[in-house]
Amino acid sequence: MSVKVGIIMGSKSDLPVMQDAADVLKEFGINYEITVVSAHRTPERMFNYAKEAASRGLKVIIAGAGGAAHLPGMVASITTLPVIGVPVKSSNSIDGWDSILSILQMPNGIPVATVALNAAKNAGLLAAQILATADESLTVKMQTYKDELRRKVEESAAEMDNNI
Amino acid sequence: MSVKVGIIMGSKSDLPVMQDAADVLKEFGINYEITVVSAHRTPERMFNYAKEAASRGLKVIIAGAGGAAHLPGMVASITTLPVIGVPVKSSNSIDGWDSILSILQMPNGIPVATVALNAAKNAGLLAAQILATADESLTVKMQTYKDELRRKVEESAAEMDNNI
Amino acid sequence: MSVKVGIIMGSKSDLPVMQDAADVLKEFGINYEITVVSAHRTPERMFNYAKEAASRGLKVIIAGAGGAAHLPGMVASITTLPVIGVPVKSSNSIDGWDSILSILQMPNGIPVATVALNAAKNAGLLAAQILATADESLTVKMQTYKDELRRKVEESAAEMDNNI
Amino acid sequence: MSVKVGIIMGSKSDLPVMQDAADVLKEFGINYEITVVSAHRTPERMFNYAKEAASRGLKVIIAGAGGAAHLPGMVASITTLPVIGVPVKSSNSIDGWDSILSILQMPNGIPVATVALNAAKNAGLLAAQILATADESLTVKMQTYKDELRRKVEESAAEMDNNI
Amino acid sequence: MSVKVGIIMGSKSDLPVMQDAADVLKEFGINYEITVVSAHRTPERMFNYAKEAASRGLKVIIAGAGGAAHLPGMVASITTLPVIGVPVKSSNSIDGWDSILSILQMPNGIPVATVALNAAKNAGLLAAQILATADESLTVKMQTYKDELRRKVEESAAEMDNNI
Amino acid sequence: MSVKVGIIMGSKSDLPVMQDAADVLKEFGINYEITVVSAHRTPERMFNYAKEAASRGLKVIIAGAGGAAHLPGMVASITTLPVIGVPVKSSNSIDGWDSILSILQMPNGIPVATVALNAAKNAGLLAAQILATADESLTVKMQTYKDELRRKVEESAAEMDNNI
Amino acid sequence: MSVKVGIIMGSKSDLPVMQDAADVLKEFGINYEITVVSAHRTPERMFNYAKEAASRGLKVIIAGAGGAAHLPGMVASITTLPVIGVPVKSSNSIDGWDSILSILQMPNGIPVATVALNAAKNAGLLAAQILATADESLTVKMQTYKDELRRKVEESAAEMDNNI
Amino acid sequence: MSVKVGIIMGSKSDLPVMQDAADVLKEFGINYEITVVSAHRTPERMFNYAKEAASRGLKVIIAGAGGAAHLPGMVASITTLPVIGVPVKSSNSIDGWDSILSILQMPNGIPVATVALNAAKNAGLLAAQILATADESLTVKMQTYKDELRRKVEESAAEMDNNI
Repeated sequence: MSVKVGIIMGSKSDLPVMQDAADVLKEFGINYEITVVSAHRTPERMFNYAKEAASRGLKVIIAGAGGAAHLPGMVASITTLPVIGVPVKSSNSIDGWDSILSILQMPNGIPVATVALNAAKNAGLLAAQILATADESLTVKMQTYKDELRRKVEESAAEMDNNI
Repeated sequence: MSVKVGIIMGSKSDLPVMQDAADVLKEFGINYEITVVSAHRTPERMFNYAKEAASRGLKVIIAGAGGAAHLPGMVASITTLPVIGVPVKSSNSIDGWDSILSILQMPNGIPVATVALNAAKNAGLLAAQILATADESLTVKMQTYKDELRRKVEESAAEMDNNI
Repeated sequence: MSVKVGIIMGSKSDLPVMQDAADVLKEFGINYEITVVSAHRTPERMFNYAKEAASRGLKVIIAGAGGAAHLPGMVASITTLPVIGVPVKSSNSIDGWDSILSILQMPNGIPVATVALNAAKNAGLLAAQILATADESLTVKMQTYKDELRRKVEESAAEMDNNI
Repeated sequence: MSVKVGIIMGSKSDLPVMQDAADVLKEFGINYEITVVSAHRTPERMFNYAKEAASRGLKVIIAGAGGAAHLPGMVASITTLPVIGVPVKSSNSIDGWDSILSILQMPNGIPVATVALNAAKNAGLLAAQILATADESLTVKMQTYKDELRRKVEESAAEMDNNI
Repeated sequence: MSVKVGIIMGSKSDLPVMQDAADVLKEFGINYEITVVSAHRTPERMFNYAKEAASRGLKVIIAGAGGAAHLPGMVASITTLPVIGVPVKSSNSIDGWDSILSILQMPNGIPVATVALNAAKNAGLLAAQILATADESLTVKMQTYKDELRRKVEESAAEMDNNI
Repeated sequence: MSVKVGIIMGSKSDLPVMQDAADVLKEFGINYEITVVSAHRTPERMFNYAKEAASRGLKVIIAGAGGAAHLPGMVASITTLPVIGVPVKSSNSIDGWDSILSILQMPNGIPVATVALNAAKNAGLLAAQILATADESLTVKMQTYKDELRRKVEESAAEMDNNI
Repeated sequence: MSVKVGIIMGSKSDLPVMQDAADVLKEFGINYEITVVSAHRTPERMFNYAKEAASRGLKVIIAGAGGAAHLPGMVASITTLPVIGVPVKSSNSIDGWDSILSILQMPNGIPVATVALNAAKNAGLLAAQILATADESLTVKMQTYKDELRRKVEESAAEMDNNI
Repeated sequence: MSVKVGIIMGSKSDLPVMQDAADVLKEFGINYEITVVSAHRTPERMFNYAKEAASRGLKVIIAGAGGAAHLPGMVASITTLPVIGVPVKSSNSIDGWDSILSILQMPNGIPVATVALNAAKNAGLLAAQILATADESLTVKMQTYKDELRRKVEESAAEMDNNI
């Protein structure tokens, strides 16, 4: 099966956060690739990655970065694919505010689908939801995933009831 | 052609902002519906809307709200469809910070694809990109749209050159 | 004696914070129940909880949540009971700002009585004050509680005087 | 019928905001009084007001103030009644942040039920909800009020449908 | 010699911060008293303290508090003495922002001389400067203190030069 | 009578704010001087002003500035006099946050007595309180001033009572 | 004389702010060019501009942008020239915070010399200072410029003295 | 070879951060000096340092400070040299916000080239870029430095590919 989602991050140090996106995609049986692409240190690599993504068959790009996080927005400026941005609370970030604002506040014309700070898991889920718009089997899996979330809360609730 | 995108907003007063999403979808030839659904004043209507969205054939939901903006997140909690959140800088919002944080900072398991403050146009474009993952003609239109953005900047640049 | 206060929280991980509400109610001899109800992972459970709360005899609901914290506001949108919101500084929260703003900034028509970040103890006290409006014995206990607060400060002051 | 709710504000200039609380209470048929009590300019008046509130028959106090807003918290420190705080975005306030934080962030032991910035209407509704815990007729009115909120949204939705 | 400066704090837990004020005053040979006075838990003690401060011979009051920090402002509202406010970054404070804003943003008519977050040492120095306006010997000591600050920096500079 | 208070400001454009300090001092019969001293555009003038202030007989300096507001802190670093800082919300300021933080957050050793944003009136009052520590007649005037504040609030309260 | 400074901006609407940089350079007799280069709408144009800047003889680039402002940082990632970033408080910016953080918070390895919000004049001056490091005549002009700043403050001071 | 860059910091405790600037300059073979100069504790030393910097042959000054960080701006007010400001997240800083705003938000006429929080390495690189405007060999080194940044990212990417 072809690779559908490209997961990229500005620095190797973002991997512990971004791995969650990969894990969720694996759980949904969606093929992905994961690599480091820095907007600031490898601008040409970033350009080429974004330029070729659609023709290589990717359907969605997940891009994570911290601080003055330009990777998601720059990739979005080059590709026509939907780009999901993950603001990473990296060591050089001011409590995540810079990561969030420099990913979220894109100008009209160039959207980035921003998720919560460090929420790479949600980026993976959003990618799955996007692919599910044309793949019924993924919708079924998404419903199962949501059922499982519900089940776990009910379990917690039951536990708490027993402890009282 | 069936309705693909549902645009909802927490209050009629959000319409001047949210209309941009509708206009972009129209421009892309994507059928949409637009209505008011308040998480706080019509919780059951919201529930039903979210619950039935997928079975009614919707593929993407765009939800805009301001202040303690629960509409996008609550709809995302109920449907399996991708939900795009538009933080609206409404009159009761604190410079938009509350709108942004209460839409963006969703917990693991329930993503909302958040766009910039008041950026309903980008929400529309993101919906088009999502649908384009399974509709080549939309990708072509998206490329044309991006070319037009580029052309306008080049035009501005040419003007500025002439004025010097 | 019937259960008067329902304490709910968005996640089991909020319990260390929310337990303070329960402890204070116990101290005041007010019957309570405590459980997990997630707006995002168990929206129907949340709906039913809020819908039935008044008819089950509850008088006040205390709801704690963190990040994009929709639980207090959504419960308030469904029930006619007073809802006390506890912004929890959970691990996915940005220093608590998201928790506070998404609970506090409710639109006109749907109040949530918000207390300080992590201040579940104050939520419990506020519930007691609300019930005291119709129960003289609780007012007496509240005065005793305040007297004890005062006594402890005076004790600290006396200690400090002795140490100089 | 006796006065149940005391509405106080730090300055006459807060009246345009605080009037909303009075209007809502009138709508619910709840007797109230409304006056100026400044923590900083009339500390003894504030003390006496808070000290005598319960014995004068008041059940709830609504206190609005802006900037370094000490009125709600100080009144709460003196009375055993539930105190609802309204952060006012007054002219000397920094976008309301000071008003919010100095009302909301009360220490353990002394709760203030804080509502949204300028949300005096919600303060009035919260007062009604508190009184409704011991007055079935108020619960009925509250349900009617919520029904009316719902009806208005449905009306907006119908209008929007017709305009498309 | 009579006590000139009163150091008060909202809670015993503020002592590690507030002790710096005492230490500086001792260094300058200024008599002080130090105690716990809580605006919220001992409002009457606070009232009496502020009311009697001037007649007891105090010339300056230093008041430290955290969170919704009302102590400095309330004391300033009652006494005619200059009040120095120390925003304490206590455990219940949101990174100190609430402490700062609720002390600093006093309304016209009631100033509080606010120093930096946790800067009780500067509060002590400011008290010394205030007393020095009428005590030449304190001015001399202040100049010596500043000379010592300068000397230490020069020492650091010399060390750094040697290390290169 | 000799000049006791020096009022300085970083720019002529700060005068509408800083005039309030002068007016209050006039009301208290305290001699003052008022001029423009820019830390950034006239650093030597600033140095000389600060250096000579005490020997010229000044007792207190009030310094107002906006944006990266270095004037109060730099003057405080040079003189032994108490310096009162007024954060001005100038046109180049970010809602006043930069003005406040760059005046308030002075390092240990060099206090600036900071008042609220634009609160030059409170700066004047604080100067009066400082001088009052050695001038009984000023204490009397300060009490009268406070009494007048109280009287005006009582008047507002009376008006409001009549309007109901 | 060859063009030394390139002034670029993300949008034609930034011109009213960025013109100040051009005006200052003109005043210093430094040749400049000014045009629109959008990182998001014309990524290739931006790439080419940055890539060729040094070989075209430019010595400094001034780049202004607002919101998620990627232009300065992306240009800095491609060229070896010093890049001065001007955060523009554009209409889609959240009080300028997004503009500032997405320009300032660049990762290690890729500096952007950031000036104050909207401070294009300072960007022009900084460019002049940079060129002055190898052009004595510019240093002389810079000293004259600073003398003029001083003279204007002294004039304001004299005026104020006369008005008293 | 003469000293080209002066690195100064407000306190010895800033050295662990500021050392990065020195290390980068060493790597580029640029002579520098490094010392402590406190605007607040050694104002005359600061004055003299800034006044003599150009005549001593310095071309660029790098100044780091935290909290109410006046050093970079004050030095910039006195010298005609370009001044690079490093906001240091010192122990007395509020998450770095005060350091950033009091360095960045300089008024028109007096620029400070501000880099990211704690980004002394970028300050060193910016100094090298400034000197490179008149020294071709430094431009070559800068390109090599950028190539190395790129190479390291590519290495990380290769590693990640192998691990999958």
